Amino acid sequence: METRLTAAESQVHQLWNKPKVAFAVGLGSGQIGPFGSETTLVYKRVNSNVGNAYNPSTGVFSAPVKGLYHFTFAVTNAGPKGIFCVRIYKNEQSILANCGTNSHEGHEQLCNGMMVELEEGDRVYMRLPAGHTLFDNTDNHSVFSGVLVYAM
Amino acid sequence: METRLTAAESQVHQLWNKPKVAFAVGLGSGQIGPFGSETTLVYKRVNSNVGNAYNPSTGVFSAPVKGLYHFTFAVTNAGPKGIFCVRIYKNEQSILANCGTNSHEGHEQLCNGMMVELEEGDRVYMRLPAGHTLFDNTDNHSVFSGVLVYAM
Amino acid sequence: METRLTAAESQVHQLWNKPKVAFAVGLGSGQIGPFGSETTLVYKRVNSNVGNAYNPSTGVFSAPVKGLYHFTFAVTNAGPKGIFCVRIYKNEQSILANCGTNSHEGHEQLCNGMMVELEEGDRVYMRLPAGHTLFDNTDNHSVFSGVLVYAM
Repeated sequence: METRLTAAESQVHQLWNKPKVAFAVGLGSGQIGPFGSETTLVYKRVNSNVGNAYNPSTGVFSAPVKGLYHFTFAVTNAGPKGIFCVRIYKNEQSILANCGTNSHEGHEQLCNGMMVELEEGDRVYMRLPAGHTLFDNTDNHSVFSGVLVYAM
Repeated sequence: METRLTAAESQVHQLWNKPKVAFAVGLGSGQIGPFGSETTLVYKRVNSNVGNAYNPSTGVFSAPVKGLYHFTFAVTNAGPKGIFCVRIYKNEQSILANCGTNSHEGHEQLCNGMMVELEEGDRVYMRLPAGHTLFDNTDNHSVFSGVLVYAM
Repeated sequence: METRLTAAESQVHQLWNKPKVAFAVGLGSGQIGPFGSETTLVYKRVNSNVGNAYNPSTGVFSAPVKGLYHFTFAVTNAGPKGIFCVRIYKNEQSILANCGTNSHEGHEQLCNGMMVELEEGDRVYMRLPAGHTLFDNTDNHSVFSGVLVYAM
C-alpha cells in the first residue's frame, strides 16, 4: 500500500505544482513606427505576467515548459490612411500575419490569435512590417496575450 | 502513512473542487445608446455563466475567488458614422479602452481582451461613453466573456 | 485506510487523465466564396488539433466529452466592397452571427467568440452566407479556434 501511496503522491505533487504561465501586455504610449525595416513590437506595459515568461525589455515570450500555448492580440492603428499589418513569430518563423485598412484616419483595429505547440525555450513575439504604424496609450488599445493551455 | 494519506487527500480534494468560473454574454436586442453620460453595458443574453459570477441585471462580474481572469469582448456598431468606444473597468478604475470608426453606416466591429488579477469580490464590467452606440440582436454580435485562468 | 487510498487514487487518476481538447485552424489559401447558398467553412490548415476533435475534411468540431467549450475566430475579407458575415453553428442551430463592412477593397477583419456547453457528440462549425467572401493564405489571416474550458 505504501507503493501505491507514493505513486499517488507523485501525481498529486505534479498536478498541484502545474506550471502557471499567462501574460497580457500593452504597447504603451504613443505612435509606434513607422520603422525602416520589420521591427519586433516591445509591449512595455505589463498588465499581467504570471510566470515571468514575457520579457518587457525585448518583447519576446520564452516558453518555460513544453506545451500548447494560446496567443491572442488586438492592435489599433490611428492613421495615416492605408494598410497596417502585424506578424506573430515562433523563433525565426512567421506563423501568422494579419492586415487591416485604415480608410478614415480614425482608430481602426485588428485582432486574431493562434495556438501553437512550443518546446521549452521556444520564443514567440510580434513584429511590425516596415512603414506600418500602430497606436496605444495607457488605455491598452493594443494588447498581446498568451496562456499555457496544456503542459505536455 | 496515515499522515501522508491525509495530506494527499487534502490536496486532491482542493484540486477536485477547483472553482469553475466562466461566462459569455450578449448585449441582446437592438441599438444600445446613445446615453447622456458613460453607462454600464448590461449584457442581458446569458449564453454561459458557470459559477454565476456575472450578474445579468447589472452587467457586473464579481470575482468569487482570488485569481487571474481573462476577459474578452467583441462589440458591433451599426452606425451612425463616427467613433465608438468601450471601456473595461476593474472596480472604479478603467483598465482598457478601445475605439473603432464607422465610416460607412454598415456593421463595424471591435474586439480586445485583458488578463487581470482580482481579489475575491473585485468587480469587472464594461461601459459605453456618452453619445456612443452599439448594436446587437439575438445573433450575439456583441459578446463579453470571462474565464478564471488561475485561482491564486 | 485502503478504502481511502483507493478513493483518492480514483480522483487522482481522473485529474491526471483530464481530456485535452484544443484546436486552431486556418482557412488556407485564396479567396473563399462567393457560394450560391450558405456553406460550411472548411478550415484546411491545421495549426493545432490536440485531441483530434476538429475534422479538417468537413470543417466540423465534434465534442469528445461533455463540457464548456470556448470558440473564437477571426476572419479577413479582401474585397469586393460590401458586407461579409459568418455564423457559428451548434448542431443545426446558429448561435452567433457577425458581420463586417468592406468599404475600401483592402483587408477588413472581424473577430468574436462564444462559450457554449456541449454534450458529447455535439458539433460546432462555421458557415459563410450566400454571396459573401473571405480571404486567407498560408499566413492564417482567418483562424478558427476552440478549447475545452471545463469538462462537466
